[in-house]
Amino acid sequence: MKKFNVGILGATGAVGQNFIRLLDGHPWFNVNFLAASPRSAGQSYEKAVAGRWVMETEIPQNIRELQVTTAENIQSAKDNCELLFSAVNLDKSTVRELENRYAENGIPVVSANSAHRWTEDVPMIIPEVNPQHLEIIKIQRATRGWTKGFISVKPNCSLQSYMTPAFALIQAGYPIESLVITTMQAISGAGYPGVSSMDMIDNIVPLIKGEDEKTEKEPEKILGSIQGNKIVSDHSIKISAQCNRVPVIDGHTASVSVKFRGTKPTIDEIIHIWETFSAEPQALDLPFAPKHPIIYRYEADRPQPRRDRNADKAMAVSTGRLRECPVMDYRFVALSHNTVRGAAGGAILGAELLAKKGYLK
Amino acid sequence: MKKFNVGILGATGAVGQNFIRLLDGHPWFNVNFLAASPRSAGQSYEKAVAGRWVMETEIPQNIRELQVTTAENIQSAKDNCELLFSAVNLDKSTVRELENRYAENGIPVVSANSAHRWTEDVPMIIPEVNPQHLEIIKIQRATRGWTKGFISVKPNCSLQSYMTPAFALIQAGYPIESLVITTMQAISGAGYPGVSSMDMIDNIVPLIKGEDEKTEKEPEKILGSIQGNKIVSDHSIKISAQCNRVPVIDGHTASVSVKFRGTKPTIDEIIHIWETFSAEPQALDLPFAPKHPIIYRYEADRPQPRRDRNADKAMAVSTGRLRECPVMDYRFVALSHNTVRGAAGGAILGAELLAKKGYLK
Amino acid sequence: MKKFNVGILGATGAVGQNFIRLLDGHPWFNVNFLAASPRSAGQSYEKAVAGRWVMETEIPQNIRELQVTTAENIQSAKDNCELLFSAVNLDKSTVRELENRYAENGIPVVSANSAHRWTEDVPMIIPEVNPQHLEIIKIQRATRGWTKGFISVKPNCSLQSYMTPAFALIQAGYPIESLVITTMQAISGAGYPGVSSMDMIDNIVPLIKGEDEKTEKEPEKILGSIQGNKIVSDHSIKISAQCNRVPVIDGHTASVSVKFRGTKPTIDEIIHIWETFSAEPQALDLPFAPKHPIIYRYEADRPQPRRDRNADKAMAVSTGRLRECPVMDYRFVALSHNTVRGAAGGAILGAELLAKKGYLK
Amino acid sequence: MKKFNVGILGATGAVGQNFIRLLDGHPWFNVNFLAASPRSAGQSYEKAVAGRWVMETEIPQNIRELQVTTAENIQSAKDNCELLFSAVNLDKSTVRELENRYAENGIPVVSANSAHRWTEDVPMIIPEVNPQHLEIIKIQRATRGWTKGFISVKPNCSLQSYMTPAFALIQAGYPIESLVITTMQAISGAGYPGVSSMDMIDNIVPLIKGEDEKTEKEPEKILGSIQGNKIVSDHSIKISAQCNRVPVIDGHTASVSVKFRGTKPTIDEIIHIWETFSAEPQALDLPFAPKHPIIYRYEADRPQPRRDRNADKAMAVSTGRLRECPVMDYRFVALSHNTVRGAAGGAILGAELLAKKGYLK
Repeated sequence: MKKFNVGILGATGAVGQNFIRLLDGHPWFNVNFLAASPRSAGQSYEKAVAGRWVMETEIPQNIRELQVTTAENIQSAKDNCELLFSAVNLDKSTVRELENRYAENGIPVVSANSAHRWTEDVPMIIPEVNPQHLEIIKIQRATRGWTKGFISVKPNCSLQSYMTPAFALIQAGYPIESLVITTMQAISGAGYPGVSSMDMIDNIVPLIKGEDEKTEKEPEKILGSIQGNKIVSDHSIKISAQCNRVPVIDGHTASVSVKFRGTKPTIDEIIHIWETFSAEPQALDLPFAPKHPIIYRYEADRPQPRRDRNADKAMAVSTGRLRECPVMDYRFVALSHNTVRGAAGGAILGAELLAKKGYLK
Repeated sequence: MKKFNVGILGATGAVGQNFIRLLDGHPWFNVNFLAASPRSAGQSYEKAVAGRWVMETEIPQNIRELQVTTAENIQSAKDNCELLFSAVNLDKSTVRELENRYAENGIPVVSANSAHRWTEDVPMIIPEVNPQHLEIIKIQRATRGWTKGFISVKPNCSLQSYMTPAFALIQAGYPIESLVITTMQAISGAGYPGVSSMDMIDNIVPLIKGEDEKTEKEPEKILGSIQGNKIVSDHSIKISAQCNRVPVIDGHTASVSVKFRGTKPTIDEIIHIWETFSAEPQALDLPFAPKHPIIYRYEADRPQPRRDRNADKAMAVSTGRLRECPVMDYRFVALSHNTVRGAAGGAILGAELLAKKGYLK
Repeated sequence: MKKFNVGILGATGAVGQNFIRLLDGHPWFNVNFLAASPRSAGQSYEKAVAGRWVMETEIPQNIRELQVTTAENIQSAKDNCELLFSAVNLDKSTVRELENRYAENGIPVVSANSAHRWTEDVPMIIPEVNPQHLEIIKIQRATRGWTKGFISVKPNCSLQSYMTPAFALIQAGYPIESLVITTMQAISGAGYPGVSSMDMIDNIVPLIKGEDEKTEKEPEKILGSIQGNKIVSDHSIKISAQCNRVPVIDGHTASVSVKFRGTKPTIDEIIHIWETFSAEPQALDLPFAPKHPIIYRYEADRPQPRRDRNADKAMAVSTGRLRECPVMDYRFVALSHNTVRGAAGGAILGAELLAKKGYLK
Repeated sequence: MKKFNVGILGATGAVGQNFIRLLDGHPWFNVNFLAASPRSAGQSYEKAVAGRWVMETEIPQNIRELQVTTAENIQSAKDNCELLFSAVNLDKSTVRELENRYAENGIPVVSANSAHRWTEDVPMIIPEVNPQHLEIIKIQRATRGWTKGFISVKPNCSLQSYMTPAFALIQAGYPIESLVITTMQAISGAGYPGVSSMDMIDNIVPLIKGEDEKTEKEPEKILGSIQGNKIVSDHSIKISAQCNRVPVIDGHTASVSVKFRGTKPTIDEIIHIWETFSAEPQALDLPFAPKHPIIYRYEADRPQPRRDRNADKAMAVSTGRLRECPVMDYRFVALSHNTVRGAAGGAILGAELLAKKGYLK
C-alpha cells in the first residue's frame, strides 16, 4: 500500500491528540499537516499544546516540531496532505462549511465531528457494519462537482458498544424489534477539562446532553440504505437509550435488553454469531481492524472498562452476561473504547477502508 | 409514645453500625443491648469495634461503654430489650434459626438480613408500600405459638429506588405490565472492606452477585396479598434488572423504563402522583418518615447520588428525567440511599410503624 | 445576642453557596442581602443559581425567593444588612476596591477572598489563634475615616490543618523553628467546575497554583503583632509547603514535620496540649466554635478526610500519627474541612467573634 | 544472549501475574515453570487464575495451558527452569526457607518478596544504584555451600521514586545529609483485593503498615558496602518518610525535601545530573533498562501518576518541581511505577543484569 500524507484539523484538542497518538507509526498514513485555532497557528505542535497535551504517552518525536497552521490555510493542506482527519470542535455550521471547503479543494475528509452526520449524502460509517455506504461518495462527488475530495463521518461513541453486536445478529438473520439501553460512559468523551471532578467523585450524572438522542437516531442511518442520491434511514428498530456519566477514564459500558422481531436465536447461537463475526475490515486485513470485532467474555463480572477496553488495540467490542430477559428476549453487557474504537481509531479504520478500496486518489 | 429498649444483633458490622448511628437520639427507641460474634463479646462496644467503626460520625457517647454480648445470650436480650434489630451477617439458615429463637423468646425481630425474606408468613415491608402485610404477624404468632415475639423483614436495597415510585402509580390506578431496570449501585451495600478499590477506580463492575434476582423477585412478594396463612406473590409485573457496581459511597441509582398494562398516565399526571404520594408512615407522622416519600427533581441532570441521597433524612426517594420511552411507555431515573432508606433506616421506619400500630407489647 | 441582618457578596458561587448553607438557621445572623454578577441580578436566588447549586443540601426555604442584586448596589446593602460576607471571585484589585467601598459605606466586611490578606491594617484571623489582631480594626477605621465599616479576612484553607496545632504548641512555650509540610488537598477548594475529572480519576496533581506560597507566607502574618498602624509578620518559623491535589471532595490533609527552637515537648505533652487547647471562641461559647478545636485521633490510620472532616460541625482540626521524626523533631498528620473551617465556616466564626466583642455596631 | 527458562513462585497472585505479563515476549527469559498454593496445583494456569486475573491484558497464549505445581515441587523447578522469580506471599520465615531451598537446589532466586531483604549476605538491588552488591553472591554461595543457586532481592516499591534521583546526586559528588519524604502511593501495591474501595473513594489513608520503616531503612542497605561476608548499611543519611495511600491504580508519587551535607549543587546542576544519569543497565543495554533512568519534567504540574508512570516501559523515574526549600536545601516531586519499576519490572531488570554478568550458569 502506498503511503499517504494526512492532516489533522483541530490537532490540538483531545480528539486531535488521539489522532496523533494513534497514527504514530501507522503503516499507511503519515501525519504531515496540523491545523488548529489562530492562537496555536505559527507555533510548533509541541509549543501549541504545551500544558494541554493530555495523552498518557509523549508527543511523537516527528510531530513535535511540525508547524501548526490555521484551519483556513487550505493551500497548505493541499500542498501537504492527501487526506484530512477532522477533529475540529466548533459550532456545527462552521464545521460543515470548513469540511466542505477542504473537500471541494480536493482533500478527502474523514471526520470525527458530528456536524455532517445528518447530511443526506455523507456516509456515517462503522467499517464492520455499513461499509457499503461508502458507495454514496460517488454520488456525493457528482452532486457537488467534487473530483478528488469527499466527506465521510463516523457515528457517536455512545452506540459503538452495542451496535456491532446488534448488527451481527441482524445480519445472521435475526431482525431486531427493539433495544432498551442504559449506558455508563467514560469522562474522556467530554474532552479536557470536560467533566468537573466535583461531579465524578462519589457520584454519577444521569445526563449527557444530546447523547440519548444520538444513541437512538444514528443507528437508523447506519442501518439505512442508499436510495437515489441519499442514505435513507431504517426505522424498523425502536431504541431507548438512557446515557449516564460515570467515573471511568475510557470505555463506555452499556446494559442492553433486546427483543427480536421473529424467531429468536438461542444463547449459544448468539455467542457463536458474535465470536465468528467478521467483516470487510477483517477480510481486507486493515491495520486497525481487530482480529475479532466482537469478543464474548464468559466471566460473570465482565466486560469491565478498565480491564477490557484495550482488547485488540482497543478496537474490539467486548460483550458478556448474555442472559434471557424477563421483559424482552435477551440482555447483555457491551463495552467499547470510546476514544479509540468510538472516535479517532474508528475514523482511522474508516480511512484505511477508503484507502484500500481506492477512494483516496 | 412510650420509649422502647431495643437491641442490635450483629452490632459491630457495617449495617449494625448504621443502626447505632441512626438510632442515636431516636425519640422512641433506646439502644440497650448489643450482640455480636464471640470475639467481640465481653468487651465494651468501643473496644469491640476499634479499627472497624466505618461511620462518618463518632460512636454515640452512650453506646461506647455498652457491653457487647454473644448472639446466643438470649436471656440478656430478654432482660434488656423489647425489640431486636437484626443486622447479623451469617449463613442464611443460621440467621433464620437465630431470629426464630429471639422471636420465640418473646422478642420482636425487625431484620435487615435477607434470610427470612421468603419465609411465607414473614412480612417483607416497605412502610409506604405494603403496611397491610403486617397483619400476617397475628397469623405468624398463632402458627408458631409465639405470643409477644414475631419476625418482620425489609426488602433488598436495590429495589427501593424504583419500588415506591412504581407502587404510587399502581395505587393511582395505573397497573404496570413491565419494568426494565439498570441499577448503578453504591459500594457501601457490600459492607466493609467489601468491594476492592482495584475494581472501583477507573472502573465499574457489571455484576453484583444475586442482586439481579432479588431486584426482580422481591417486588412480587411486596405487591402480593395475604391469603390464608401466607403472603402470596403477585406475578403480574415482569421485571428485568441489570445491577452494576459503581464508584459511589452511598446511593443506588436506577435507569427505569416502564410499560403500563392499560391506559397510561400523562407525564404531568405521573409527576403529580409522585409529588402528592403519601402513605401510612406520613399519616402517622413517624419519626423516620420523610415528609414526601417521592421527590421529583426538575433539573435535567438529577437525581445524582452525592447530591440527592440525603434528601429528607436520606429517607426520601428522588426521581427525575421522566420522559417518553421509544420502546416502553416512559422512562425515568430513581435514586435512594441504600444504607439508610434501603437498610437500617427502612428497618427503623418499619419498627416505628409496628410500634405505632401496637405490635410491640 | 441581638440578631444581625447579613449579606453575601458573590452569593451564587461555590463559596457563596457555602455561606448560605452554613448560615441557615444561624442564631445570630440572618441572610438578607445577596449580591452577584449582573447576569444574576434581578432574579430570585433560586433562579440565579438554577443548574449551579452544588451543595448537598437544598437551598434554604427563606433564601429561594430572595432577590439577587449587583455588587455595585451598595445602597441596597446599606438598607438590608449590617455585615457583609465577601465570597466574591474577581481579580484582586477589583475585590479590594469593592470591599473598601462597602466598608466606607458603613458595612463591616468579613471576607473569604484573598485580596486584602496582605493589606497591612487588615487582620487575617483564625479565631482560635490571633483574635487579638482584631484590635487593629480601630486603627483601620481611624486611618481611613470609617466609622462603622471595616474589613477583616480569613487565611487560606491550606494552612488551617496544621496552623492551630502548631500555634497551640508555641503558646504552650515550645517555639517552633521550622515546618516541612506536604498537603493533600480536596477538589472543592477549586470551586465548581474547578478541577477536571480527567486530572482526578486514577491520578493526583502535584501543583495548586500559588498555594505553596500562601501556605508558607500567611502564617507569618497570623503569628505577627500589631506595631503602630500595621500588623508586622513574624519570620521566626521557616515553612516549606508542597501542595498536592487529590481526589477527595472535602478535607485538606497535611503530613507535617516540625522542629522546635529550644526544648522540645514529649509526645504525651504535645497530645495533652492539643487536647486541652481552648481559646477565645470556646470561652465565649460562639455558635460555630468547636468544643475542642484540636482533636487527637489515636487510631494508627487516622485522620482521614471522609471520616474526620466533619468533626464538631466540621470546625475542629483533627490530628494523628504523632511520632518522632528521624530528621526533624516530630511529625504528624493534620486535617481540616477546607470549605467549612477553612473558608465559610471560619469566616462565620470570625464574624461571631466580632459580634460578641462589639465590633458590629 | 542465550535464552533462559525461568519459573515464577507465587504465580497466581498479583505480583506473579505482573511477572507473567511483563515476561511475555522477553528476549532472554522464557516462562516455563509456575508454582502456587496447593489449591491451584495440578491445574492449567488459566484455570488456576480464573476470576483472579487482574491484569489489563490477557493471559499470554503460551502461559494459559502451562501446568501449575506446588512450591514444594522443587524437582519440577530443577527440570524446567534455570532462574526463579519469587512472588510468593507467605509469612516471612516460610518465604526465607522456601527461597533457600530453591537456591540450595541450584536455582538462582530473584525475589520480589521482602523476606530476605535483611539477610546480611543477600544483595538488595536497584540495578542503576548498587549493581556492585551482586558481588556478595560469591560469598553467599561460598558460605552456604551453594554452587549454582543464590538469592537476590529488590527493595520496596515506596522508595524507588526518590532513591535513584538521590543516588545520582550523591554519585555526582553531593553527599546528602537528610531527606524528608511524603509518599502518595497507589493501591496496586496492596495487591487484590487489597485496599477497600470504602477507603479510597472521596478519601485517602495516612498509613500503610510497615511502609514508613521500609522507606527509611532500606536505603541504608542499598547505599551500604560489602565488608567481609556481609553488606553493611550506610547510616549517613537521615530519612523521614510518611506514606499515604491515595486513589491511584499505579504509580507512587513522593514529595521530597533534601539537605546536602556540604556544598550543594545548583538547580541547573541537579537537573543536568539527573538527565545525564546512566548506569550499568544502560551501558549493558539490558532489555528492561530505560534509556534515561531519570526523566525531568519541566511542566509545573508534573510528574503525575496517570500521565508519567508508563515513561520508558514504566521503568524510568520521573521527577519535577525542583525548587529551593525554605527549610532544607531543595525539594522536588518524584514518581515511579510501583508494580513495574518498583516490583516485577525491577526484579526482571535485576535478573537481566545477573544474566549479562554471568551469574546464571
